[in-house]
Parts: sequence; C-alpha cells; structure tokens
Amino acid sequence: MKKTAVYPGTFDPVTNGHIDIIKRGIKIFNKIIVAVMFHPKKSTLFSLEERIFMLEHSLKGLKNIKIEPFDELLVDFVKKKNAQVVIRGVRAISDFDYEFQMALMNRQLANDIETIFMIPNGIYSYLSSSLVKEIAQYGGNIDTLVPMFIKNQLQRKFKL
Amino acid sequence: MKKTAVYPGTFDPVTNGHIDIIKRGIKIFNKIIVAVMFHPKKSTLFSLEERIFMLEHSLKGLKNIKIEPFDELLVDFVKKKNAQVVIRGVRAISDFDYEFQMALMNRQLANDIETIFMIPNGIYSYLSSSLVKEIAQYGGNIDTLVPMFIKNQLQRKFKL
Amino acid sequence: MKKTAVYPGTFDPVTNGHIDIIKRGIKIFNKIIVAVMFHPKKSTLFSLEERIFMLEHSLKGLKNIKIEPFDELLVDFVKKKNAQVVIRGVRAISDFDYEFQMALMNRQLANDIETIFMIPNGIYSYLSSSLVKEIAQYGGNIDTLVPMFIKNQLQRKFKL
Amino acid sequence: MKKTAVYPGTFDPVTNGHIDIIKRGIKIFNKIIVAVMFHPKKSTLFSLEERIFMLEHSLKGLKNIKIEPFDELLVDFVKKKNAQVVIRGVRAISDFDYEFQMALMNRQLANDIETIFMIPNGIYSYLSSSLVKEIAQYGGNIDTLVPMFIKNQLQRKFKL
Amino acid sequence: MKKTAVYPGTFDPVTNGHIDIIKRGIKIFNKIIVAVMFHPKKSTLFSLEERIFMLEHSLKGLKNIKIEPFDELLVDFVKKKNAQVVIRGVRAISDFDYEFQMALMNRQLANDIETIFMIPNGIYSYLSSSLVKEIAQYGGNIDTLVPMFIKNQLQRKFKL
Amino acid sequence: MKKTAVYPGTFDPVTNGHIDIIKRGIKIFNKIIVAVMFHPKKSTLFSLEERIFMLEHSLKGLKNIKIEPFDELLVDFVKKKNAQVVIRGVRAISDFDYEFQMALMNRQLANDIETIFMIPNGIYSYLSSSLVKEIAQYGGNIDTLVPMFIKNQLQRKFKL
Repeated sequence: MKKTAVYPGTFDPVTNGHIDIIKRGIKIFNKIIVAVMFHPKKSTLFSLEERIFMLEHSLKGLKNIKIEPFDELLVDFVKKKNAQVVIRGVRAISDFDYEFQMALMNRQLANDIETIFMIPNGIYSYLSSSLVKEIAQYGGNIDTLVPMFIKNQLQRKFKL
Repeated sequence: MKKTAVYPGTFDPVTNGHIDIIKRGIKIFNKIIVAVMFHPKKSTLFSLEERIFMLEHSLKGLKNIKIEPFDELLVDFVKKKNAQVVIRGVRAISDFDYEFQMALMNRQLANDIETIFMIPNGIYSYLSSSLVKEIAQYGGNIDTLVPMFIKNQLQRKFKL
Repeated sequence: MKKTAVYPGTFDPVTNGHIDIIKRGIKIFNKIIVAVMFHPKKSTLFSLEERIFMLEHSLKGLKNIKIEPFDELLVDFVKKKNAQVVIRGVRAISDFDYEFQMALMNRQLANDIETIFMIPNGIYSYLSSSLVKEIAQYGGNIDTLVPMFIKNQLQRKFKL
Repeated sequence: MKKTAVYPGTFDPVTNGHIDIIKRGIKIFNKIIVAVMFHPKKSTLFSLEERIFMLEHSLKGLKNIKIEPFDELLVDFVKKKNAQVVIRGVRAISDFDYEFQMALMNRQLANDIETIFMIPNGIYSYLSSSLVKEIAQYGGNIDTLVPMFIKNQLQRKFKL
Repeated sequence: MKKTAVYPGTFDPVTNGHIDIIKRGIKIFNKIIVAVMFHPKKSTLFSLEERIFMLEHSLKGLKNIKIEPFDELLVDFVKKKNAQVVIRGVRAISDFDYEFQMALMNRQLANDIETIFMIPNGIYSYLSSSLVKEIAQYGGNIDTLVPMFIKNQLQRKFKL
Repeated sequence: MKKTAVYPGTFDPVTNGHIDIIKRGIKIFNKIIVAVMFHPKKSTLFSLEERIFMLEHSLKGLKNIKIEPFDELLVDFVKKKNAQVVIRGVRAISDFDYEFQMALMNRQLANDIETIFMIPNGIYSYLSSSLVKEIAQYGGNIDTLVPMFIKNQLQRKFKL
C-alpha cells in the first residue's frame, strides 16, 4: 500500500519551517508532493519558476519528494496525483483556526482525502515567509530562518 | 411587544450559512431586516443591486423578512429602523473574537442595542462567501453551499 | 407570538454579571426563566435553596422573570417550559469554546431550541462566581461584583 | 515500509467520534494500535476491561487494528510497539491548545515520534465521552453519538 | 539602573487606548520612547509628521516620554536607543497570537531585548485605530475613544 | 525610583520555565519577590517548606531575588511588599485567557498594581509543573525540564 501526501503552499520563499515539516512528513509517507500554488491574481515576491527553483535547491538530497506547481482546487490536484492525504503545518492557534476551516471544506469537496496537521520544530514556531521577507528587506539576520541559498536570493531581490 | 432584529452583512454572495441563520432568527424575532452593507471603497464581486437581488431570490417565501441596503454606521441604521437587536452568526473562534470587538464598540455607540450571536448548522461551519467564490472560480462543486440560483450567478460571473 | 427564554446556570452565587445578562435578555424576550442547576454530586458553596433565595432577592422588582430549579437535561427542561431559546453569557474566548460545544450538542438533542449568546457589560468581563468566592474568602472587596445582599451571604458563609 | 500509528485515549466509553478517527486513520497507516490508558488514580466510569471490551465490540470487522492497554509514558509505549506516529483527533480550539502542548512535550521526550492531528466528521465536533455520559445519565437520546452496544452498556451502568 | 522601554506602533491616529498603555508604562520604566513606524509602502490616513504631531499634542504634560519615528527593524531601533524592553498592549486573543509571534521573532533577532505585554483599561478593550477611523468617517461619536484634538483632526481629514 | 515586581505561583515544583522568566524579569526590575502560594485546601505534591527550599536552591547565585510565601489575596501581598508590578509568564493561548481574567480582576481590586506578561524561552513553551510531575512519576527523562536538584527531589518523592 503506497501512500502519497501533498504538502501545498505558496513557498514565497521556502523557509526552514517548511523544510522541517517536509522532513517529518517523509518519515511517515512513501512520497510527498510539494505543491506550489500559482494564483495569477495574487502577487508574490518570487515568480512561480523562482519558487520552484528555490524549493528544488533546498530539498536537494531528500528522497521521495516531488515539486510541482498547481493552479486548481487543491482537492482536484490531490486526486489527479492519486494522493490520499494533505499535510499542513500548524504553528499557532490562529493558524489552526483557518486550517480547520479549509480542511472541513476540502472534505466536503472530496470526502476520501484526509488532511493531517503536523507541528514544526518549536524553534520555527514564530516563522513565516512574510516575516522572513520583512526582516530581509531591512537587512536583518535570517541565517537561522532560511537556507543560505534562499538568503542570497532574498538579498538579490531586495538589492541589499 | 414587537421585536425587530437586524442581520447585517456584505452577502457577496449569500450562502446557505446565511440563510440558515436567517431561518433560525425568524423563529425568535417578529421581523428580521437583512441589511446589505454598501461601502463605495470596498470592492465586491457582485454589485449592491445584484447582492440584494440574490438575497430576494434566496429568501422568497420566508415571511417577516425585509432586505435593505445601508451605507452608514450599523447602530445608526438599527435605530432608524426601530430595531433593538443585531444578529451575528459565528462559526469559529477567530470569528467570535472580531465579533466580540464589534459588539462592544457598537454598545459603546448605542447602549440600548443588543448584539446576539447564533451558531449556524454544523454542516456550514466551514462556509464563507470568500471560500464559495474561490471554489466556484475553479469550477468546484458548490451545490450544497449556496442555492442553485446563486450557483448560476457565480458561474455567469466567472464565465464558466 | 410569546417568546420565552431560559437562562441556565449554577449561580453559586449570582453575580452582577449574571444580573446584567438577565436585564439585557428581558429587553428581548417576553419572559425569562432563570434555571438553577441542581446536581446531587457536584458540590456547591450554597445549597439549591440558598441559591434560589439569593437570586430572588437580587432580581426583585424585575418583571417577567421566573426562577426555577432543574435537575434534568437542559433541553428537556426547556421543552417542558415551552421555551424556545437558551441564553448564555460569554465573556472570554475559552468560555465560548465550551459554550459552542454545549450549544451544538443541545441542538443535536433538540433541533427546535436555539442557543443565543450575549455579552455582559465590559466591566464584568473578568467576573465569575468562582473568582468572587475566592476573593470573598480572603476578605477582598467585592462591592462592585455582587449585590450587597450576596456580599453579606458570602461573609456569613466564610465567617468573616 | 510498514507504518504503525498509536491512537491513545481513555475511551470511557468509546464514541462515534473516536470510531470515525480510527476509520480515517486506517486509510493512512498499515496498522493502528488503539491504546487504552490505565491510570490507577484516575477514576473512570468503566473499568479497563470494560473499556477494552467495548472497543473490541465497536471496532469488530475493521482490519489492521489492535486494542491494547498502557500504563506508562505514551512515548515509551509507542517505542515498545515499534510505532512511529501518534494520532490525535482535534475538535475545538481549546482541544488543540492542550494537544499542541502534549505533542511538543512528547517530541522532547522522543524526537523520532511524530504526532499528527486529524479532524473527525463535523457532525461529531461537539462530541466527547464526558458529554455522552452526562446525557446518558439523564436518559437523553444518544443514538447518534455511540454504537448501540455502548448505549446499552451506559444504560446498564446508570441503571436506567 | 536606568530602564528605557520602547512602545512601537503606527498611531494612525493615537487613541485613548494607546495613551492608557503609555501612562501605565511610565509608572514602571524610567523613560518610554514612543516609536512611530514609518513604512514608505504602507499607506496611512495621516502622514508621519501628522501622527507624531498628534502624539505630541496628546501626551503633553507627561514626563519621561519621547516620540520618535523609525523605519528600520524594531530590534535595531531599540538597540540604537539603548533600550532594553519593548512594550505591547494586548486586548484580545487574536491580538496576542500575532504579538506572541512577533515577540519570539524579535527575541531570535536580539536575545537581550525583552517584550512585555500590558492590558489597557477594560473600557478600551474594543478600541483600535481602524475602528476609530471607520466610525469617524461615518460621523459617529468618538468622544470617549480619542482626545478632543484627535477628533478634530479626524473630522478635518474626512471633511465632516 | 526603585521598582519591585512580584512573581507569584505554586511552584510545585519550580521548573526551568519559571527560572527563565525570573532571569528575564530581573533584567527589568530592581528586585523580584518570588511569591509562593500557600492554600490550605489545595493539595500539592510538595509542602510549602519544600517548595520554598527548592526555589532557594534553584535560584542560588541570582541577585535581587527574594522568596516568600503568601496565603492572602495577591494584591494585598503586593501592596504589603511595596511592589508595583505582578509578572506572569504566558505560554499558550489558553494560558493567556485565564491570565487576562486574573489581571483585570486584580486591577479592579487594586488599580495601581500593573500586571505584565512575559514569554519564556520557546523551548519551555510546553512546560508546566503538572507535566513534569506526570513524566517524573513514570520515570521519564526530565533532565532538560528542571534543575538536577529538583529532579532528585521528584525521584525521592515518587520513590523511583
């Protein structure tokens, strides 16, 4: 019985918190598809190609992981990939509240897909892509928050 | 003693969750005014006229209900209508937090108007107008989330 | 159309927060039944008779209010009284969480009974019977938290 | 790669909410061990033997499920069973708060064991063993909350 | 041992809630620097100069308080000022959730700076600059929410 | 201007989380009084004398700290000690909810005493005296949760 899980997100950019969840997930599932959301109307700092490229660079060496874009309903993507599970990382209560709502809605749309929640390492409990971008923009130290490669990409983007 | 309650919202568009609250409210109050917020600067998918029209269509047959636009402070509208109560539906904790703040502020502005909170049917606990729009946009199945008429309006809007 | 609401609680003892909710409720409903929970196994500071007596004293002069004990399922009591609504006061988030659970369970048991939530005056947002008892026990000042009569009863009970 | 998950609880008694989580879990994992907590000092309505018997009866026919008692640290039990994952069902925000704390503590005690959270069917979102016992005690209708066999056991216990 | 605290915010405009926190803070610390955030890309109703001017006017007479703009990482500003503490006012749960995240992130960036949380007077528990602006825009009564001077500035801005 | 803060608790037993808050607090205040609650009716694992002794041992070497028992209203103790501030550590949302209530109640009882909230190091975010006792009882590893001396006391108590 092969189990595939989808880990969806915007990854603008990927952080050490995301990578931590992926590493925990791959111990449970046979394969994880990191699904990079593409939304024509929502503006991101990095393009879809850049976000995928940064993920590939950051997850190099990890086995059983695939990175793919998606621009459809999450449940439709999950079905198309023959996956059974959606993984979501939760840090804080407010996170969970929104995640709960999405999970129930997705169950309504596709009853056979389960959403499971995982907690990242406590040292990443304050971490989000938005915070990383805000700190990087002001030249703050993000060495422990993202891989070195991502740090460089952020500095290039902000012309620091 | 005639009791009138105001049920305010943007209704962009009305969902089965809204309709559920209205049906529950009308068992308690003699009259419910569904107050459709009009905010010139906030963009909505549907125009004020469309939102009112969709509500009229969805609430057809229900007695003691009036649908009216408002573009003023909620408490001023409530007073003008000689209503005594504001009804708010709450689904999740984060909802309630914001609602609590609004209710206390409105009490500060008009001490004689009470806000009461009601819970929609559990099957609508994940439901919001934003989620419905997001799912409809991707062609997802919203048959159980909005009346058929609203579904058609959404499909027309998104040219599906 | 006569509307009766039940306001259930332990009232061990009644506080200014409870009285505030009752006064707000009676502006909305034709009649409010203050239902005093009696649970043989749960120990209370005041006996059922004392709790009812203190409520009667504190609500003297308010019209359309009845005080009654109950030792059955809340929904069974509500039906027997031909009431349609249960009123609950909510102060904090954690309150609401528990209340939400009870309201959904009661709806499951009796679909035609609605639970509505009301917010007490902000100055009572920290107030609970337990806190009042704790403060009274140490001789703290509870003048603004309970009616004078209740204060005296607490002092007698704690032999202050 | 065989994946075993442990689903711990008191199950005093098992409810339809527990059964729902177990059924969802077994679609993800190769084997689920339902671990029944035994705590000499914590009083339960049903004895350990009764709780296990009721689980066996309720889960009859489900494959890849084992029911076992434990009276040690959860992480020690999980290791002894060569399991890698702990499953927890979460219903409400307050649930999650406590669960989050336990999961982080367990990770501290055993870094290689992951806790994952799953959401039961929305119709069980208000359901807990305590509520079931309270309703059963008063003769309320629990037909949709527990299997028929559990209902009978509760009625026998309460001599209804 | 001189203790300086920084109280950062957008203050668009300052409210009675902010002033309440500052007055409470000055009883604890030797000096408070009210740090007015300037973010070129985030639009505010009042310009940086106007926001500082309104703060100066509202805090006139209070000793040991300095008002200064900042457009850098908060922790960098705090260090430059030789301050040791960041003060944040918290009103509601959702507030605290976000504040918690910011405080942990700031500790990560500068381990020797402590964030402390204070609660404003309960009568301001519903108060925010956004709500004040919304009410003022509709000509609502904000007499108890901001100083008279701020009220006049708001009315001028909205050409009421 | 000498500033004294009171840090109240049961400390049954003191954990690394408590010690972390005390160390952070002493950087802000001139003196911290660690106030050990004594409640004749509430049973604790360690006696008042043991709890004070363990605190003394754990805080040895830290300056400007005093450890004292109290069995009265917190605000009365704070006044008697000429302190102006109460320090509380907050970890999770549910913590804060309860703390918020206590702080507002204490302000009602003594308006000139401020409660401030501080966050312990993230690695102690899951830590509580109850959890430590539960883990110690089962022989779990608590090396990173309490000082070695406390660990020994717990093992002696549980006769491990």
